[in-house]
Amino acid sequence: MKVVKFGGSSLASGEQLKKVFQIVVSDPERKIVVVSAPGKRFSDDIKVTDLLIDCAEKVLAGEEIESEFATIIERYASIAKELEISLDIIDTISHDLKALLNGNKEKPDRFLDAIKASGEDNNAKLIAAYFQHRGVLAQYVSPKEAGLIVSDEPGNAQVLPESYDNLYKLRDREGIIVFPGFFGHNKNGDVLTFSRSGSDITGSILANGVKADLYENFTDVDAVYSVNPTIVQNPKEISELTYREMRELSYAGFSVFHDEALIPAFRAGIPVNVKNTNNPTAPGTRIVNERANTNGPVIGIASDKGFCSIYISKYLMNREIGFGRRLLQILEDFGLTYEHVPSGIDDVTVILRQNQMDKEIEAAITKRIITELHADKVIIEHNLVLIMVVGEGMRHNVGTTARAAKALANAGVNIEMINQGSSEVSMMFGVKEAQEKRAVQALYNEFFVAVPV
Amino acid sequence: MKVVKFGGSSLASGEQLKKVFQIVVSDPERKIVVVSAPGKRFSDDIKVTDLLIDCAEKVLAGEEIESEFATIIERYASIAKELEISLDIIDTISHDLKALLNGNKEKPDRFLDAIKASGEDNNAKLIAAYFQHRGVLAQYVSPKEAGLIVSDEPGNAQVLPESYDNLYKLRDREGIIVFPGFFGHNKNGDVLTFSRSGSDITGSILANGVKADLYENFTDVDAVYSVNPTIVQNPKEISELTYREMRELSYAGFSVFHDEALIPAFRAGIPVNVKNTNNPTAPGTRIVNERANTNGPVIGIASDKGFCSIYISKYLMNREIGFGRRLLQILEDFGLTYEHVPSGIDDVTVILRQNQMDKEIEAAITKRIITELHADKVIIEHNLVLIMVVGEGMRHNVGTTARAAKALANAGVNIEMINQGSSEVSMMFGVKEAQEKRAVQALYNEFFVAVPV
Repeated sequence: MKVVKFGGSSLASGEQLKKVFQIVVSDPERKIVVVSAPGKRFSDDIKVTDLLIDCAEKVLAGEEIESEFATIIERYASIAKELEISLDIIDTISHDLKALLNGNKEKPDRFLDAIKASGEDNNAKLIAAYFQHRGVLAQYVSPKEAGLIVSDEPGNAQVLPESYDNLYKLRDREGIIVFPGFFGHNKNGDVLTFSRSGSDITGSILANGVKADLYENFTDVDAVYSVNPTIVQNPKEISELTYREMRELSYAGFSVFHDEALIPAFRAGIPVNVKNTNNPTAPGTRIVNERANTNGPVIGIASDKGFCSIYISKYLMNREIGFGRRLLQILEDFGLTYEHVPSGIDDVTVILRQNQMDKEIEAAITKRIITELHADKVIIEHNLVLIMVVGEGMRHNVGTTARAAKALANAGVNIEMINQGSSEVSMMFGVKEAQEKRAVQALYNEFFVAVPV
Repeated sequence: MKVVKFGGSSLASGEQLKKVFQIVVSDPERKIVVVSAPGKRFSDDIKVTDLLIDCAEKVLAGEEIESEFATIIERYASIAKELEISLDIIDTISHDLKALLNGNKEKPDRFLDAIKASGEDNNAKLIAAYFQHRGVLAQYVSPKEAGLIVSDEPGNAQVLPESYDNLYKLRDREGIIVFPGFFGHNKNGDVLTFSRSGSDITGSILANGVKADLYENFTDVDAVYSVNPTIVQNPKEISELTYREMRELSYAGFSVFHDEALIPAFRAGIPVNVKNTNNPTAPGTRIVNERANTNGPVIGIASDKGFCSIYISKYLMNREIGFGRRLLQILEDFGLTYEHVPSGIDDVTVILRQNQMDKEIEAAITKRIITELHADKVIIEHNLVLIMVVGEGMRHNVGTTARAAKALANAGVNIEMINQGSSEVSMMFGVKEAQEKRAVQALYNEFFVAVPV
């Protein structure tokens, strides 16, 4: 049995839904279809979810929403018309959304969650109707009915463990199940949404619940690329990568989808196949627990901007018990998360995302480090890029670090930081933002172009 | 004005003292001579300080010390005889030591400090007597008389700031001052010793106090070597290195003398010249604030054994505020100091000296990390070596890292850890103990043999 999830761009129009239908019915193992809300049809289009958020916020502000409401319903209606299915379903959707908008607004975040979730929920109803219209045995199943129970955290709900046993029973249903992504219900029956990439999370939970053989995640690219295609032209596609590689790569801004969404599937050992709705015969990228090493040591290179470093030096710091712990306590007091803490003999550097900082926070932190920890020097530097070089093949592969460092040196890139030691499947380089492209290109050339096949 | 310090091996015999005399009188700038206790004359010899400790411990245990006492006095007497000076000084020394041994034993650590310090103190008296015997204007000056005031910490006294103004007045004395190293007095007049390399500390304090132009530290090697000569044969000597390089190198077991001893001289910006009593015309090694870069990027390579690593992994660790701080708190609760904390996305490694750990502590730490931090995995590995590659020339020198990593890779050395990012003048590699020699040799060949001159 396969769980198949389609993203918003795969569901944005009737034409797209026809492709989705063909994909699902072409393989009888594709039993459970998880759907997002309709996404963009063209680059300036607005996603239904964004229309819904706008609508909910206006309602909360006491404003008129007549035209916004009409726009949302029109999106569903245009799909239904394109597919030539009965417009009864549009009445159902309109009625449902109106009731939600008239619902309880005492807790605005829950109200917002309910409105947002309706995008997926109503789309699942529409798609089920379309499948039925095409003469296939298909049914809409709601998360409530299926027993997808979540924690009481609006916008960041976590699946509760009892859900999995409930969801296992979906195996017994006949025909195709069309299931809305993005939300579940708490024990009181209130709607609560997951965090971003919520439909990916739902698919992953369902795959775990029904013990699927495969979780297929349909999106709009043929595969996961080995490097950001806006930096390197026509990069190599990755046919197979491990969960761990995916996690390391997605850390540095490399994401077809949000890696945490995969946790439920990962825990159940279910492979994930990222595929393209617009080119379903392409093999896509498989994300697995273990893989054969068929390429060189490196499978992917990712980079992420927007880091800063806090350098702290103090003579004899090295002898001082508790220095590091007290330093991290100061950061914690400001609610800052840090990424890495490379250290020298009498100095230490904290690498963190600079969007957490502003001039005031920087001044306050500097002051506390100097007055409380008696540091000799505190220097904050901005605009660092972290580059991750990832691959299971790097495990005990003598020389990968040297190759990477040499490639950077030959390209004239100055390495501000190297972090290697903890993870066996990655190494990280810190460089100045201005050198990002040159650095990534040099690493790509070293490991993907120069590798003898 | 120069402060000149001589170590124990330079003062072990009359023959050595003749060299010392020649060195001092050959330069009229050499005004202040700091001396250790007599050291070893041959490899199986016993240092006077060790004889004194043995003697003091026996006294505290209520044992007879007649023969031990005689052995100590005989050491001074044999030097005096060799130098053909009046044995009056031996009477003085004998009388002084007897009085100390009969002194107050209520606080054994202070008693021990007083006995230990007598080794330097009496040697200074003997040496002053010899200088006078040679017709030179010279005087013994005691730390008490000079106002070298220290904190009340037996075996680990710290100089108090008011000492420096007191010591400045030594400039006004005529002739050569012979000053005992290793100790000062607290405000009550009790003797307290410095930590190891205590005479180096005294010399450094005096150099600062009198605002010397140079602090000459005479020992028994021609220079500081660029690498451990027991690993690499006939290594290059270092003619000049900065305080910072010295500190980074000495961290990894690389020490002609204890780098912390240099702090007072360093704070006053006074250069240090390490020279050889047995070959005083050799230029030795100068330790300075800044140096011209006359060699390649690397000035020295040091390595130190006996480290272990605690690897901790936990899925989504990266999102958890306070994880690192709580981990360091656990180590602190066990009184452990750590060296470095390289981190991956969902894992972190703590590098620390393994002599702080035993099976029980390891088990207790592992348990706390698992139960309190809910780590997925904790793995402790032993017998790591840290290798420091140091040089001011590495600052923004693109490619040094690559050269080092490539040299290690070509030698078949697996790099367990790289720590670069904080210090600009060093990089650190962690390797398995069995690969230490091969790794150090490979780095030496890369930076010292292969460098085009």
